[in-house]
Amino acid sequence: MELAAALRAAGCDLLVVLAQSARDPALAPFVGAVHLGSALLIVPAGERPLLGPFTDMEREEAARTGCAVLTPESLRLPESLRAGLAAAELWAASAGAALESAHIAAGGRAALAGSPPAGAAVAVARELERRGWEVVDGTELVRLARKRKSAAQRRAVERSAGGVADAFRAVARILAASAADAEGRLWIGGERLRAGHLRDGVARALVPWGLDQPEGSIVAAGRDAGVPHTQGDSARELAAGEALVVDLFPKGELFADCTRTFCVGRPPQALRDAHELVVATLRDTHAAARPGVRGRDLQEAACARFHVAGWPTPLHDEGTLRGYVHNLGHGVGYELHELPSFARTAGEEGRLEEGDVLTLEPGLYEPDEGWGVRVEDLVAVGADGVENLTPLPYSMDPAEWAEES
Amino acid sequence: MELAAALRAAGCDLLVVLAQSARDPALAPFVGAVHLGSALLIVPAGERPLLGPFTDMEREEAARTGCAVLTPESLRLPESLRAGLAAAELWAASAGAALESAHIAAGGRAALAGSPPAGAAVAVARELERRGWEVVDGTELVRLARKRKSAAQRRAVERSAGGVADAFRAVARILAASAADAEGRLWIGGERLRAGHLRDGVARALVPWGLDQPEGSIVAAGRDAGVPHTQGDSARELAAGEALVVDLFPKGELFADCTRTFCVGRPPQALRDAHELVVATLRDTHAAARPGVRGRDLQEAACARFHVAGWPTPLHDEGTLRGYVHNLGHGVGYELHELPSFARTAGEEGRLEEGDVLTLEPGLYEPDEGWGVRVEDLVAVGADGVENLTPLPYSMDPAEWAEES
Repeated sequence: MELAAALRAAGCDLLVVLAQSARDPALAPFVGAVHLGSALLIVPAGERPLLGPFTDMEREEAARTGCAVLTPESLRLPESLRAGLAAAELWAASAGAALESAHIAAGGRAALAGSPPAGAAVAVARELERRGWEVVDGTELVRLARKRKSAAQRRAVERSAGGVADAFRAVARILAASAADAEGRLWIGGERLRAGHLRDGVARALVPWGLDQPEGSIVAAGRDAGVPHTQGDSARELAAGEALVVDLFPKGELFADCTRTFCVGRPPQALRDAHELVVATLRDTHAAARPGVRGRDLQEAACARFHVAGWPTPLHDEGTLRGYVHNLGHGVGYELHELPSFARTAGEEGRLEEGDVLTLEPGLYEPDEGWGVRVEDLVAVGADGVENLTPLPYSMDPAEWAEES
Repeated sequence: MELAAALRAAGCDLLVVLAQSARDPALAPFVGAVHLGSALLIVPAGERPLLGPFTDMEREEAARTGCAVLTPESLRLPESLRAGLAAAELWAASAGAALESAHIAAGGRAALAGSPPAGAAVAVARELERRGWEVVDGTELVRLARKRKSAAQRRAVERSAGGVADAFRAVARILAASAADAEGRLWIGGERLRAGHLRDGVARALVPWGLDQPEGSIVAAGRDAGVPHTQGDSARELAAGEALVVDLFPKGELFADCTRTFCVGRPPQALRDAHELVVATLRDTHAAARPGVRGRDLQEAACARFHVAGWPTPLHDEGTLRGYVHNLGHGVGYELHELPSFARTAGEEGRLEEGDVLTLEPGLYEPDEGWGVRVEDLVAVGADGVENLTPLPYSMDPAEWAEES
């Protein structure tokens, strides 16, 4: 949905974005890859966005965005600073001044988006209300406008996915180069192999792609692998035969997101069986995902499959912490988690459309037995199916990765 | 100032932090280096913080923080999700439920901090008001509590500064290894030397330190160097004799921040003179900075020095875009810009105290003549002066860096 349509659908006359950086996912689609600190963006429905960076030092960056630029003077920032306004009041005064200098008449409904300091959001909302605006949450509206990716956004995701692929191959190479001693402890270059070795390999692989990891990464072994969001301690020494969940979600202009589960040496039978079932479920999901399908439908199908195999699922055993414990996927873009939604309660924002980019990530977890397995692909929805943007091996055996490379 | 004292000074009974990640600078000091998505933190004045992550998958991470943990059930998240609450309302319902399950009586003043989606901040404020709380901005209060660094925070800054030092030496090595042709164009390994080569060198140098660059970096040559916040295009081809401002501000648990200006080959006389004056001003500032001094005093002294030398300054020529155009420094920590403040209007939060970590960064800019120079050190305030955490060469000549290394 275009922003103008999303604003119309929400009955809004105006979008106000409050951001602390050009990387704010509510601001980034309007400004691209520039360097900005605190800034506000005003978009009257159907009109050209107005961008007001808080410092003149960012005038050249602002000029590159294609937005009309509001100067710090037109935000009355010099006066506000002279008056010693507290930060939140300074945001509010700037928002008011921006509306005035853009000659936007008061009295409609304004959607508020972005991630400013909480106090600034409250102060701006109060200022808009004082000026006769009804203030509503604009987060979902902006997400909706960002759901389908443009060609340029799609390319940015593919670049991030390219970095992810190199990073996984680096992880597989390091694991394949490690050696187990008689106790099953893994060694590399004369020292114990630690999760940190893998993180370093990932970071080095991402350099040529210009990607960083603003949300970190998950390199979780053994029991840590059994709790999906446990990131794993870099000092953790790794062993043969244990599950190693590696979930990477680096960002360039947009995020990519992909997970593989490794096991050096022979996996226990339960882990092997779970991995096989998870991969089979992922393959089925790939085949079922297409425009018009709801994320929730895919989740229910995955739950049904795990349930039949005897595993607890959130559909059959609400709140379960073992078995299949999470949702099947999420949209990916300027945010790591965006639309389409896989929530039961999702409306049209839960329906896959051509141009969507999302993850598919079944997993099974046995925290009390000390293992977990998750396999996650990043896919783009095409006219009649999905394209896998992370076509990497599924094998848990790093040696097989080398053969496939 | 301790948080309890900061809350008392602001007349607040409660701090409420709304965060989208453990890296939110208002949340990070309470939780350390863990992996969290959206979460709220409640701190009754003088009591143990209560942390409520929005998903059970983060229970192990939350348990590592030392905070009391509020489960998703105690935030009534499962009901809110079943009811299909919009995201902002879900935050509000969670905050209300958190207060109830922590048995916090209503009716005082609550400080709101963190950087949640703007609509969530507004919804939580409305919910608190509905429950009889007066809601005030908590951003400055939390910053005040973070101003003086603990020993552990100081070590985290020093780690980031160690990465910065390696990154600058990598930049100097690449520049020193480049060669100019007859037209002054720089070449390396058979191709034109570009800003991107330097950025790659920086990223590679940061890997062993586990640092990333959530706010990017500035690698600005020629005219770009003349506008302080222009980040510089990575495709920009570099030339001998031009100014190259490299401003790096990577983050581990906390930020570091440092700038050097390079010039390959012979700098024009005006650039050389400006660099000399900027370095002399920086040395004077190092000598003048000590506990009790105000950041504003240091800024005024720098302005006086530049003014005497014939340059415009913000003190003598408000709004100038040439000469000395910005402030002399800023605190550094969980945020790239925090306290102490160098603002004219700053009160006690503008006074240096033992334990503060801040930058000192004089610069001179001639955008119309296509150059700028800035030199920035990161310093820690001790009992009777400052310690330089970025003791790198000041020389513009990368060859001299190699000799000093």
